[in-house]
Amino acid sequence: MISSVRVIGTGRAGSALAGRLRASGGLAVTTGRETRADADLILLAVPDGAIAEVARAVPLGPWVGHVSGATSVTALAPHQRRFSLHPLQTLTLDRGPEQLDGAWAALTFETDEAGRVAHWLAQQLGLHPFVLADADKPLYHAGAAIASNFLVTLYRVAARLLVESGAPPEALVPLMRRVIENGFQLTGPIARGDWATVDAHLAAIGERAADVGPVYRALAEATREVAADRTDRPTDQAGS
Amino acid sequence: MISSVRVIGTGRAGSALAGRLRASGGLAVTTGRETRADADLILLAVPDGAIAEVARAVPLGPWVGHVSGATSVTALAPHQRRFSLHPLQTLTLDRGPEQLDGAWAALTFETDEAGRVAHWLAQQLGLHPFVLADADKPLYHAGAAIASNFLVTLYRVAARLLVESGAPPEALVPLMRRVIENGFQLTGPIARGDWATVDAHLAAIGERAADVGPVYRALAEATREVAADRTDRPTDQAGS
Repeated sequence: MISSVRVIGTGRAGSALAGRLRASGGLAVTTGRETRADADLILLAVPDGAIAEVARAVPLGPWVGHVSGATSVTALAPHQRRFSLHPLQTLTLDRGPEQLDGAWAALTFETDEAGRVAHWLAQQLGLHPFVLADADKPLYHAGAAIASNFLVTLYRVAARLLVESGAPPEALVPLMRRVIENGFQLTGPIARGDWATVDAHLAAIGERAADVGPVYRALAEATREVAADRTDRPTDQAGS
Repeated sequence: MISSVRVIGTGRAGSALAGRLRASGGLAVTTGRETRADADLILLAVPDGAIAEVARAVPLGPWVGHVSGATSVTALAPHQRRFSLHPLQTLTLDRGPEQLDGAWAALTFETDEAGRVAHWLAQQLGLHPFVLADADKPLYHAGAAIASNFLVTLYRVAARLLVESGAPPEALVPLMRRVIENGFQLTGPIARGDWATVDAHLAAIGERAADVGPVYRALAEATREVAADRTDRPTDQAGS
């Protein structure tokens, strides 16, 4: 039903999406910043704050989609043939279109026909689709930002404490990979109820990296709640 | 120089360490809770709060080590032939001794001879060693806990927001893996200076998961500092 796609936006998302559509074969794919309606589907890969303005500049006719996880599909007005597809992946210009493979995508649409276009696009992009209600987008996107953007912060804060203590920060990488591979099992002092160690952490942070105190405290409190939810409670020494 | 090791403690750490020493070959390895001094090296894999008491119960003579990242080697008194080796890894009873391979280990010791024993042990265990001063242990261990224990919390909090918005929480896993593979590049709204999206997150969290507010705010503030440190600032739409 769709044989041509124009991707507006040439940043990290636009580049990966256009590259993946080209690689999928059988589609005429054009890219650029111009808001022409010269394709069956116009895909906006622009910052959230620019979606409404760019959408208004696209002539009515083709399908129009955007790729934001946070912004409503109604930002695409006056277009009615519209949907959003948010690739749940962190994208970089250092990788090619294969970086989308295996990732999930949140599809938001208002009609069955728009749903079929959104699912077709997910398939072309190699993304696992799930349906997300328009009203749930901000909460969903907050979760995505916590998992990805704040994961960067977690590493940077932890790495800083290792550097401050003379340890190599790259030593954290196999640890963090294994936490994911092990399915996010909670280990460590809070899982063991070892508050003396938590107090020792807070004392050391207070002396040598005081600005880390608030984020440590907030996460320790949230971790205490995670630990209280668990049914299995290891009582022995963990690796970290 | 050391031909026999007794591992005291049969939890996750003790099991993995004893298994790895057995697999390394050429060593007589015994395990259990009894505090005998029937080996060249007695390795305590017990909770931090129990190290001092267990160490006092071990007869003087052999080398004595513990595997805590937070506790001083002086907790091993009255033993003077002592050191600590902290495997920087999250350990589970579901995996075998191979789970130590490729991980790093913090070695803390007071004499050259103790340093040689600690390095020998790291090699036997397949761990990459680095030296950590005794006074730096609490700060180092706080960093390790942030990177691993709080990573579990980050996932659980993010997963909860996805469930609350009707999205599959397992969709976060490829995202989090890629953040690590990409070398912790910061993307997303805070990297773009998109505070409208951050406000939308906070509003959604306030309405539907208010107790997540403090941890989101603390991490957003820390992320703002990470973003301010960067030299490269993408201005375009990211995947999340």
